[in-house]
Amino acid sequence: MTQWVYSFDEGSKEMKKHLGGKGANLAEMTKLGIPVPQGFTLTTDACAEYYKLERKYSEEMLTQMEEKLQKLESETGAKLGDAKNPLLVSVRSGAVVSMPGMMDTVLNLGLNDVSVVGLAKKTGNERFAYDSYRRFINMFGNVVMNVDHEHFEAEIQKAKDAKGVELDTDLDASDLKQLCEAYKAAVQKGAGKMFPEDPREQLKMAVDAVFGSWNNKRAITYRRLNNIVGLIGTAVNVQAMVFGNMGDTSGTGVLFTRNPSTGENKLYGEYLMNAQGEDVVAGIRTPEDIDHLQQQNKEVYDELVAIYLKCEAHYKEMQDMEFTIQEGKLYILQTRTGKRTAHAAVRIAVEMVTEGLIDEKEAVRRVDAGSLDQLLHKGLDLEKKKEAKVLGKGLPASPGAAVGKVVFHAEDATALHEKGEPVILVRVETSPEDIEGMHVAQGILTSRGGMTSHAAVVARGMGTSCVAGCSDVKIDEAGKQFTAKGETIKEGDFITLDGSTGEVILGKVAVVDPVLSGDFSTLMKWADGFRKIEVHTNADTPADALKALEFGAEGIGLCRTEHMFFEGERIKAVREMILAEDLEGRKKALAKIAPMQKADFKEIFTAMGDKPVIIRLLDPPLHEFLPKEEKGISEMAGELGVSVEKVKETIDDLHEFNPMLGFRGCRLGITYPEITRMQARAILEAGKEVSGSIPKLEIPLVGNVKEYLIAEAVILEVASSLGLERKKDYEIGTMIEVPRAALTADEIATHVDFMSFGTNDLTQMCCGFSRDDAGKFLGKYVEAGIYERDPFQSIDQTGVGKLMEICIVNARKVNNDMEIGICGEHGGDPESVKFCHRIGLNNVSCSPFRVPIARLAAAQAALEDE
Amino acid sequence: MTQWVYSFDEGSKEMKKHLGGKGANLAEMTKLGIPVPQGFTLTTDACAEYYKLERKYSEEMLTQMEEKLQKLESETGAKLGDAKNPLLVSVRSGAVVSMPGMMDTVLNLGLNDVSVVGLAKKTGNERFAYDSYRRFINMFGNVVMNVDHEHFEAEIQKAKDAKGVELDTDLDASDLKQLCEAYKAAVQKGAGKMFPEDPREQLKMAVDAVFGSWNNKRAITYRRLNNIVGLIGTAVNVQAMVFGNMGDTSGTGVLFTRNPSTGENKLYGEYLMNAQGEDVVAGIRTPEDIDHLQQQNKEVYDELVAIYLKCEAHYKEMQDMEFTIQEGKLYILQTRTGKRTAHAAVRIAVEMVTEGLIDEKEAVRRVDAGSLDQLLHKGLDLEKKKEAKVLGKGLPASPGAAVGKVVFHAEDATALHEKGEPVILVRVETSPEDIEGMHVAQGILTSRGGMTSHAAVVARGMGTSCVAGCSDVKIDEAGKQFTAKGETIKEGDFITLDGSTGEVILGKVAVVDPVLSGDFSTLMKWADGFRKIEVHTNADTPADALKALEFGAEGIGLCRTEHMFFEGERIKAVREMILAEDLEGRKKALAKIAPMQKADFKEIFTAMGDKPVIIRLLDPPLHEFLPKEEKGISEMAGELGVSVEKVKETIDDLHEFNPMLGFRGCRLGITYPEITRMQARAILEAGKEVSGSIPKLEIPLVGNVKEYLIAEAVILEVASSLGLERKKDYEIGTMIEVPRAALTADEIATHVDFMSFGTNDLTQMCCGFSRDDAGKFLGKYVEAGIYERDPFQSIDQTGVGKLMEICIVNARKVNNDMEIGICGEHGGDPESVKFCHRIGLNNVSCSPFRVPIARLAAAQAALEDE
Repeated sequence: MTQWVYSFDEGSKEMKKHLGGKGANLAEMTKLGIPVPQGFTLTTDACAEYYKLERKYSEEMLTQMEEKLQKLESETGAKLGDAKNPLLVSVRSGAVVSMPGMMDTVLNLGLNDVSVVGLAKKTGNERFAYDSYRRFINMFGNVVMNVDHEHFEAEIQKAKDAKGVELDTDLDASDLKQLCEAYKAAVQKGAGKMFPEDPREQLKMAVDAVFGSWNNKRAITYRRLNNIVGLIGTAVNVQAMVFGNMGDTSGTGVLFTRNPSTGENKLYGEYLMNAQGEDVVAGIRTPEDIDHLQQQNKEVYDELVAIYLKCEAHYKEMQDMEFTIQEGKLYILQTRTGKRTAHAAVRIAVEMVTEGLIDEKEAVRRVDAGSLDQLLHKGLDLEKKKEAKVLGKGLPASPGAAVGKVVFHAEDATALHEKGEPVILVRVETSPEDIEGMHVAQGILTSRGGMTSHAAVVARGMGTSCVAGCSDVKIDEAGKQFTAKGETIKEGDFITLDGSTGEVILGKVAVVDPVLSGDFSTLMKWADGFRKIEVHTNADTPADALKALEFGAEGIGLCRTEHMFFEGERIKAVREMILAEDLEGRKKALAKIAPMQKADFKEIFTAMGDKPVIIRLLDPPLHEFLPKEEKGISEMAGELGVSVEKVKETIDDLHEFNPMLGFRGCRLGITYPEITRMQARAILEAGKEVSGSIPKLEIPLVGNVKEYLIAEAVILEVASSLGLERKKDYEIGTMIEVPRAALTADEIATHVDFMSFGTNDLTQMCCGFSRDDAGKFLGKYVEAGIYERDPFQSIDQTGVGKLMEICIVNARKVNNDMEIGICGEHGGDPESVKFCHRIGLNNVSCSPFRVPIARLAAAQAALEDE
Repeated sequence: MTQWVYSFDEGSKEMKKHLGGKGANLAEMTKLGIPVPQGFTLTTDACAEYYKLERKYSEEMLTQMEEKLQKLESETGAKLGDAKNPLLVSVRSGAVVSMPGMMDTVLNLGLNDVSVVGLAKKTGNERFAYDSYRRFINMFGNVVMNVDHEHFEAEIQKAKDAKGVELDTDLDASDLKQLCEAYKAAVQKGAGKMFPEDPREQLKMAVDAVFGSWNNKRAITYRRLNNIVGLIGTAVNVQAMVFGNMGDTSGTGVLFTRNPSTGENKLYGEYLMNAQGEDVVAGIRTPEDIDHLQQQNKEVYDELVAIYLKCEAHYKEMQDMEFTIQEGKLYILQTRTGKRTAHAAVRIAVEMVTEGLIDEKEAVRRVDAGSLDQLLHKGLDLEKKKEAKVLGKGLPASPGAAVGKVVFHAEDATALHEKGEPVILVRVETSPEDIEGMHVAQGILTSRGGMTSHAAVVARGMGTSCVAGCSDVKIDEAGKQFTAKGETIKEGDFITLDGSTGEVILGKVAVVDPVLSGDFSTLMKWADGFRKIEVHTNADTPADALKALEFGAEGIGLCRTEHMFFEGERIKAVREMILAEDLEGRKKALAKIAPMQKADFKEIFTAMGDKPVIIRLLDPPLHEFLPKEEKGISEMAGELGVSVEKVKETIDDLHEFNPMLGFRGCRLGITYPEITRMQARAILEAGKEVSGSIPKLEIPLVGNVKEYLIAEAVILEVASSLGLERKKDYEIGTMIEVPRAALTADEIATHVDFMSFGTNDLTQMCCGFSRDDAGKFLGKYVEAGIYERDPFQSIDQTGVGKLMEICIVNARKVNNDMEIGICGEHGGDPESVKFCHRIGLNNVSCSPFRVPIARLAAAQAALEDE
């Protein structure tokens, strides 16, 4: 005989396949001896059987359900539909995997015109009883009997209008009693049949509804889109309701087994007597500290302590628990792993090792790598933040808090900064021209662009707080002001940014500096011991390089030379080169840039010592180095002594319909080999003069091995003229960022010394959407579940990842020992780092502030192999 | 004992590995008994040995070379360096594969102060002898002794200045004799050693130079870039020179074994007595028809006929031969497969089958599929032509009609073409410098030169109309005009060419469609019998569809609905939709478009009968439907009754940095499902109303199976509301144009009924360059050999092709019977069609005029499997 129904005390977490996730969890707690409100679970097999019988129950199933219900009644001493001590239950769906497309919950099932009186007596609160009743009719009518929610809304509105009040809370017990009748009439009208007064009928109908929701359109679509297959049905959990509002010996609360803010190993929580859970959450009454319960009800307090200790010992994790005290008896409604700050997570993990609860590996596994961001940046004083006015919310593009005076142009940022003032640069979007202003700013706010927009990428690299794409603020750059939430913020006004949440806040909010604890170092040391792949950094300046070393970087995986092109006098020489009519003109201009580049490289090599440094040759389209606005154009013409027309003509010439797919990367150096020659010489001479350094020259945007070979030939020529030996003194490699390069990796791997995935471009070309433009639809795509996460933030493992795997497999076939890495945004995303580990990369490279994240994620990935 | 040197009469074409391509060819001709000027070949093994001995010859090798030389002297009765009957030879490199990076040719080797006198006597032309001598010193000095060409240029300039003349031809024998001395001094100065008077020393040095050129930088780079491996060295061919300018019993000419213009099976050619080959090619003197030779020298003519018959029988192909008559004796300098017009190619192939020379398969193999384009070109309307004024008649050098504006310089042709104007390039004669201008021209007219002049040969190759050697027109290139029949035609005036008759006509004459010959039908019938894949067409209108059916299309592989959006009133409704503020507004506008779309589809289905029709849902970015200029914007605002600002705002909103990677394709329909719904309904209703039709709905730009599923759900809903059954009444499929779709083809193939490669977009994204912008560098890329052919014209098989293969393999794993095709530009490119056959596509789709090309190419691909 198949057992279709299990009481909570008959199961365990191992029976998830039959009991569903929620059911197994309730059984497990019961098994631990934790006082959970009892109940029973109809199994997933029962659901399958229900469908097999064409949406009917077998006698067997009904008999078992009745048995368990009677057991529940006898255990609780309450009876379904009883006028004195009514048993109320909740009915919840609970599949093996959580499935938002399905029916969620029906509460207070068992209420009817008789039992509502019992509830009123039991709680001594008639208004509460009728409010619960009318809510139950609404919920049941809606979820089980498919009556539109708006019909109930209409009735309550009528009731309030009749009484001339505005709030639901202004309705008294007798109003609500009347409302229950109106609701029942609404059910009758909407469903074409009566609201069932018989609680057993209610229960059967609710179970029907849960089973039915397994195959409703939303659930089917959800399973189809998420490729959930092999499940036979959903389980149904029926659980006794308990009440914290049955007088002064009742109450409700939440607790954490350790402090979720600091990680301190001490019971932490709050509660309210004679209250329901909603009251705590809603913040209508101020709850008491959990310590106070010790005086108020030592017995319950001690029981709580015993339970929390038992739970931590069992789950070996900090728990977040909900409890209700019903007439002096403690019930645990839920226990689950507690959320915590990054700071607390590190402390808890390390202390649990000390306490012997977990080992070092588990500690490393426990801390969410992505959350480390919080530890490395300034944060807002959360108390102070509560009082501030939030002007809008954009993308949390670069974490950390920033306070400063608003300016709207890069040059104004520089000017204000020189006066010693803190600056927030506000732009519709930024461009390379703004670099200097961005550099001096405390924070950057843009109204357009995504997580990988120029502002976001540059800010993360600099470790500067940035909120991007905040469409709530309307920026008038020319008028030097922006408006948001009815406020007008002018140049010089203070605002505060929270780059970790994306919030833009009016005025100044106090900030707190990050403090890296000893626990943090301990955890990172453990992590480094486990991880298999190296963690490098993306750094364009010696300052970035030093910062990254501090965070544990083992090399530079990407040094973008073009950022150097923008600084000070250089941009003039770069523009002179772009405007040159012929080779001679370009050479002349390049000769001015060469010594500056060389000096930069020497500084970087010196900073990095004998750690490897990958330097990417000039990559962006040339138009990025030219001014965009009239003013800049006429200034440039004046500086270079050419006509404004000439500058405009050049800008027109360089205009492209799809610059992302245009004249950039190695295409520049193939057309103008003198650029490659100058850069190769600057890098190799610098390397030669800094002993111990091994420059690695990287050719960008290669899609065809012949492109690489042409660029390589130029470098080899320069190297040979300097008497340098390949592999010993320097290396040559390429970015893999064009799908074609990945597909023909075997051809390329024969020649290169190293490869590095440029997954930003690779994602753009593989998925066919540009970072700059995808904002229009990518949000919707992630919402619709087309992509689980923004593929520019976390590698699209199914698509882009497959391309990477094809590349690696083919490259290793011909060049097995070659280093293959990844640079760009994904190198600092924990899921991406783990993926990189799995597909066999040698290193990941990310912005300095993400280095610790990558180190931890890499360790976690290595531990997943065990 | 290794044989390092082979006389031509010792080898055959099977010995290519040792003799190189050229040497094997000369040996084969000798073996056939064709009177080839004799000589010998140093083998590729000799080259390897030479390097093995550190750039020295073994005694053995030198001895063999001397033996063969003496044999040559004895056979020709001439001696190297002889004062009376000097033997002159050419020295040429000749590797197993043709290799432009290597040394090409040294002519007239053997000339020195003594033998030049002999040559003068032998030819009775002292000026010719000393001109040959000074050219030899220049060539030898430059190629063998590395003296810069400019030094010789300087000397000849001095000589002309001294004499006060402008042209080389103004120098007489004695001037040239002096120039030889100056050239020798230049060699002495430039090379630091004397020009070698000893002909055997000359020969050894020339062989040295050829062997040396095998490992010069250019050759190494060429091999590296073209992945040429496994070759051991180059062969060297030493061949006796013969002279067609030794008086009236000497001459030179070219012949084709069949008429290269019409294909008629009749000896065809022209010659000049007492002339050198250059004279014929350069078009300085107008040559005689080959028939005339029968009267002039029947013996030689009969020998030529015998040879041509033998060659055709041997090679079973139409031959293009160069011959020289030296003092009455005939020499064949070269025979090779002759170039021909497409018309001739088809006729020759079909007639050779009739003649029993080749079989049907070979006939199908023989015709260059790409050249069929020529047959499908338009001709002149003969009635209209009657009224037109014929300005002159030249040689019908390349068939087809052409109408355009006259230009006189290649660069002007390019400039005018870029403005979108049709161009006729008019030149006295053309040279390789003019190639680009010739390429963009509708037609080419020259006043000098024969059927084998540069202009004629190149134009036929390009399929461009050409009238050559039209002496009726007097061309003033500098003055940019020509006169003929009393008319003065200036740059920019229209003329018409009839390349099939040689007529040059004043003004514009109407053109008519071509009539395809019976031979063409025969050949295509054979081809259809062999090919395995279907040929469909890209057609957006019923007219296109009918044209394609005429050309043998078996279905529509791509019907782009957006083209319908632009017509007449529709664009207004489309713009209304784009401007709509909400769903209701969009629905209202879509309701206007729906009946028009449906009517279009009905027409197309009716035209195509029961042949499949793939209709792609809306694809381009919405901004393409909006006006770009002020005038259009204000007109649109007026028409739709909205403000100009509103229109501009919408245009701004839709602006994208990289529209190619932006909001387009299925992304439109996912954001606005109402568009998909309208289109699906229009297509399915139309299909329902045209009996026998099977509409295939194609979802564009899918990169993720979930995109497909969301769009599919909308179509399924519409279909179900119309009571239609999938696969029976309609099909749903997708374009594969995003690399990610190809990579995840297994996920997609589970759901779709068909797939079609959109290789334009796939190439853009796979290679990372946009069609619109790649012009800046793609030309250079093809020149540099980075891509063999423009990947937008012919599939990049190594990169994009690999992606296609991955897609097909994975798709077939889950959906083996599914039709997979290709649409877009590549479907009509023969190489691409063959590739599609090889990787197992079911069909290709191309523009109507390319359907015959695809049919033939598909047949050739199938025959390659045999």
